[in-house]
Amino acid sequence: MKNKSFHMHHSAFGAFSSFIIGKIGKGGGFVLSDVRPPQSNILIGFKQEGKIKLLPFCTISDNSAEEEFTGEVADTKKEKSIELFSENEINREIGWASDTWSAGNFKFSLITPFGNVKEPSIMTDEEKKFAFAPVIFAKLTLDNTNSTSDAEMIFGIEGLKRRLSQTTDNKYLGAAFSTQYGFGISNSEDVRELSRLDILTSWANDNYQNHDLGRAPSLIFKVPKGSSKTYTIVLATYQSGIITTGINSKFYYTEVFNSLEEVIEFGLKNADYYLNLAAQRDKELSESNLNEHRKFLIAHATHSYHANTQLMKKEDGNALWIVNEGEYIMMNTFDLTIDHVFWEMKFHPWTVANVLDLFVERYSYYDQAGLAFTHDMGVANGFSPKGYSSYELPNLNGCFSYMTHEQLLNWTLTAGVYALKLNDKEWVAKNINIFEECFKSLISRDKNNDGIMDVDSSRCESGSEITTYDSLDVSLGQARNNLYLGMKSWAAYVLLNTILEKNGHKELAEKALKRANIAADTIVSKFDEKEGYIPAVFEKGNTSRIIPAVEALVYPYVVGNVDAVSETGTYGELIKILKKHIKTILRPGICIDEVSGGWKLSSTSKNTWNSKIFLSQYVIKEILNMNFGDDVEKEWDRVHESWQQVSCSEEAATDQVNSDTGTARGSRLYPRLVTSILWMK
Amino acid sequence: MKNKSFHMHHSAFGAFSSFIIGKIGKGGGFVLSDVRPPQSNILIGFKQEGKIKLLPFCTISDNSAEEEFTGEVADTKKEKSIELFSENEINREIGWASDTWSAGNFKFSLITPFGNVKEPSIMTDEEKKFAFAPVIFAKLTLDNTNSTSDAEMIFGIEGLKRRLSQTTDNKYLGAAFSTQYGFGISNSEDVRELSRLDILTSWANDNYQNHDLGRAPSLIFKVPKGSSKTYTIVLATYQSGIITTGINSKFYYTEVFNSLEEVIEFGLKNADYYLNLAAQRDKELSESNLNEHRKFLIAHATHSYHANTQLMKKEDGNALWIVNEGEYIMMNTFDLTIDHVFWEMKFHPWTVANVLDLFVERYSYYDQAGLAFTHDMGVANGFSPKGYSSYELPNLNGCFSYMTHEQLLNWTLTAGVYALKLNDKEWVAKNINIFEECFKSLISRDKNNDGIMDVDSSRCESGSEITTYDSLDVSLGQARNNLYLGMKSWAAYVLLNTILEKNGHKELAEKALKRANIAADTIVSKFDEKEGYIPAVFEKGNTSRIIPAVEALVYPYVVGNVDAVSETGTYGELIKILKKHIKTILRPGICIDEVSGGWKLSSTSKNTWNSKIFLSQYVIKEILNMNFGDDVEKEWDRVHESWQQVSCSEEAATDQVNSDTGTARGSRLYPRLVTSILWMK
Repeated sequence: MKNKSFHMHHSAFGAFSSFIIGKIGKGGGFVLSDVRPPQSNILIGFKQEGKIKLLPFCTISDNSAEEEFTGEVADTKKEKSIELFSENEINREIGWASDTWSAGNFKFSLITPFGNVKEPSIMTDEEKKFAFAPVIFAKLTLDNTNSTSDAEMIFGIEGLKRRLSQTTDNKYLGAAFSTQYGFGISNSEDVRELSRLDILTSWANDNYQNHDLGRAPSLIFKVPKGSSKTYTIVLATYQSGIITTGINSKFYYTEVFNSLEEVIEFGLKNADYYLNLAAQRDKELSESNLNEHRKFLIAHATHSYHANTQLMKKEDGNALWIVNEGEYIMMNTFDLTIDHVFWEMKFHPWTVANVLDLFVERYSYYDQAGLAFTHDMGVANGFSPKGYSSYELPNLNGCFSYMTHEQLLNWTLTAGVYALKLNDKEWVAKNINIFEECFKSLISRDKNNDGIMDVDSSRCESGSEITTYDSLDVSLGQARNNLYLGMKSWAAYVLLNTILEKNGHKELAEKALKRANIAADTIVSKFDEKEGYIPAVFEKGNTSRIIPAVEALVYPYVVGNVDAVSETGTYGELIKILKKHIKTILRPGICIDEVSGGWKLSSTSKNTWNSKIFLSQYVIKEILNMNFGDDVEKEWDRVHESWQQVSCSEEAATDQVNSDTGTARGSRLYPRLVTSILWMK
Repeated sequence: MKNKSFHMHHSAFGAFSSFIIGKIGKGGGFVLSDVRPPQSNILIGFKQEGKIKLLPFCTISDNSAEEEFTGEVADTKKEKSIELFSENEINREIGWASDTWSAGNFKFSLITPFGNVKEPSIMTDEEKKFAFAPVIFAKLTLDNTNSTSDAEMIFGIEGLKRRLSQTTDNKYLGAAFSTQYGFGISNSEDVRELSRLDILTSWANDNYQNHDLGRAPSLIFKVPKGSSKTYTIVLATYQSGIITTGINSKFYYTEVFNSLEEVIEFGLKNADYYLNLAAQRDKELSESNLNEHRKFLIAHATHSYHANTQLMKKEDGNALWIVNEGEYIMMNTFDLTIDHVFWEMKFHPWTVANVLDLFVERYSYYDQAGLAFTHDMGVANGFSPKGYSSYELPNLNGCFSYMTHEQLLNWTLTAGVYALKLNDKEWVAKNINIFEECFKSLISRDKNNDGIMDVDSSRCESGSEITTYDSLDVSLGQARNNLYLGMKSWAAYVLLNTILEKNGHKELAEKALKRANIAADTIVSKFDEKEGYIPAVFEKGNTSRIIPAVEALVYPYVVGNVDAVSETGTYGELIKILKKHIKTILRPGICIDEVSGGWKLSSTSKNTWNSKIFLSQYVIKEILNMNFGDDVEKEWDRVHESWQQVSCSEEAATDQVNSDTGTARGSRLYPRLVTSILWMK
């Protein structure tokens, strides 16, 4: 691929840990209970005839680590020949579950297996081990077939401290930091550990004497002349003890693994299973009929999503699912949960119910209008008090105000998708009263009965509600009389209609239907025939044009209600109007940025959000059947890809960017971009 | 005091954690399982009439944290009036267990209580709680007596995440990071928590609304007009689970405390006990007849020593004592253990036996000459394999070579001091065979029977042994035929004589006495009558002059063998010669640095070590009764104080410095400077 220099998370499912690498010259490393990249030197490469060549994830210092240590000038300066591969010598290939660098005869892959995950309570211990082992893998290959001299490869991370052989009776070789992370491989004649204060100088000079004051304990792999060798190592993390407060919980994997060493052993013994799992995912993405840019965007999003996942076990023995919010590390932010629902319904739908239940149990409240839900459940492993998020504050009109109405819709829609798509009757039966309460609460927030929210929550006190687009301008930021939220309300009524009807609440179901019709009529009535668009806010002469007008169409569609989103269906008029709206605004200077050619969510803000672009792309193409031509669409994807690969290269998957430059404005290292999973059939 | 801007560790006994602060402009913060200072903003100060004044441990940013968060420019820029006290407005006072900053009517103290600690196995749980609670204290005072407006004080640390009220049912207020560290105070009407993204702007504008995305959750203390108020808070750390590998162990305090919250509660309930304990120590140091420089040096050393201490519990239930080696974090480095013996014999002698036993059990080995001990027990919480240190390597002649002979002496001398000073007969009985083995091993390393080591360990292979002065030049670095080690051998024989005799090994005891005499004679014979000194190494025409020639006199002396160190005693000739030696070399241009006026351990190296200077100062003044005049001696102390306060101001207690500038060469953040405890009667 053309752009190679960008960071990527490499993470196991639910372990809230990453090995981050990819931005050339910026190093990388492990990070635990966080998603921000460290800048440690990473040693990956090979030595042949005394010459070392490494991938460009470290800096070669002229200082001698030994001199630094002793405060004296070393007696004998050893020569070393070390070169970093330059960017143009390297090729990088991203699979759904792999990230591969090749340079000449050398190849390095990071492999992050993932697949379907069952609810833990119905798993055997063995199944739990396979599903929750906090492991990823790395593969190093050197093709030395045509050479007449032996070679060696290296893998090492600065900052690790101890050699793995010492805590495994020499059964495994590798390195670790404390009891918390490390890497390993089974002991064999082809591999050895090397720890030195100045490891590259020592290695260059064939000094293999281990020194446990070393700063980057490494593995050295033999590649004899005339052979091609591939070595697979496991990278593992382990966080023990109580991790979250407010609700005390431990990592679920600590139930089946007692130490980092046990995790590494399990990973190595079952490497074939995991590599096969990853290969399956790679194949699926590769064989999809998506263009190369979309394939990349899905893979990139997947990596950062997994980096933010955290599967815990509460003191009552039950599983607790958390997705963290990228650089902000808020926990289970509800306006992300609803965007993750497409991913989670595909791979582990039970996590959706897990989060919805905790919202009901602990993160719901009643304001003057009825039931509502909080924005999030806390921040940085600290669960916030019952009924309160870490984000929302009273007496504000912008960022950090309450999102009461949006979160009420988020529960209704997320629960609706879960209930209707999975047909989990037991769960619906338990929660049917919550659906009813949500319906009542929605209605009482629409004082003028036009289907659109017009009452702010009493929790706002003197302030007013906002939407998930908190830092965008008023076009998407204000909740009251908002087109985007109006459409979400409509979708909620459509889903409520189905759920209530299926569960024998015929009268209420009809009421919901009526509400959906009223909302649709109201939105249609706001259409500006002359200009061909619906204004973003039905107040104060607002003239912003927004793409997320169509976002909510996704919910009826994914639960199979094709009628609701059809031009010839129940809401045909609305659908026709929305298509006109999109046709009008998806133009340079309106919602296509004139500088970059990428999508702008709002005509009046340069702040644009990738996760929401992907979602709307899906709606416009797949649901509204609007075709802008393959070349045009591919060019859009190329621009969005370049925002991630070039403009946000140090921030892994990034949601909020400037639409002209693609540079990050916020929401870095973010899980939400997995809305792109919708693109896959 | 004149110099105020230097870092200091503030640590509880055995918790291997610190709150570091003191270098102006460099912030500070908590550090766990490490001793290196973080650079977080620390908020300490007060607000009156909308104006905030803070101690200079934070930087005031013009950027708005809220803007940064949202990626948008905030609607309303709030003015804030914030000033940092300048260095000359501040006074700083260091007590043995306190560190106090005053500025105008404001005062801030960090209080680090310590005292005698019994062996854990004979303690009740309640005693363990008092002795091992990982707590220190801070006191904030504002004298608002003469003011007509109410004021408030603040204490906060950037990087903490959650408010303590949330995990204590509002019983305690404060802040914490994860389950690992934090601070707190009992809930009352006079105190509140404040967490804001941009806390200083909010506080300046009287905005007390808590926002749990805050970056420096703080405590705010009321000080009404016309009153003077003092608030005491507890600072605590908590590290759960298996911490060390190689030998698995947990922090001993986790046996009696289940969480950070329990530790904070205990600290607050027993604050009086702890403050009283600290006050006793402050009083003892203050009332000692030492000059101000020595008082400071003892206090400074004490703080860094405690920062490096780590009391663990092994899986067999027994206590495990570790002192870490400053920036290198090697564990129980033996050449530090012997220097800590004076401190530990005073406050917790059982830790000496604890370490000696582990050296015998796991960190001893046999080479061609007999029993020997390793340099250390591992590094960074990783115990090294049985029989091996993390430091020593074969085939070297300098730094990182084996210290076999020195460590053999270190066991003999440390064990001798412990046995004779404490008269622990049970322990001696158990270990008398080890003393014998040590004696045999010492003899077989002296091939020419002159009392001085001349055989390198077979572990060196082609290399040769070094001494603890590893990074000094050959004058102190080479072990073979070394004056410093020769004197240590002499001292070992002197102590062995007493121990063997007391335990009925009369014949061996006499042998030891004979050896001591031979060693003394040899050293005396090396005296250069013309130049008036003994050369550092009895080889190759070496002419270095070294102060540590006299170091080993301390061991017979502290066990009460006054005869051995007397000019009129058994070794009178040796003592006389040593006095002449010191008289010759303690001169500018030889062992007094001509630039700084401080002590140089060796005439041929600028690398000088504070811990060893203090030890030799004690020997020369107290044991050899050499008097250089109060003014001269005080000036030496002033220079050594300024090395710590000025030249090494960012590195807390530092051992290895350049003798001309006082700047650090190595051994930063070091425990070893507690040799200064010898100065106290």
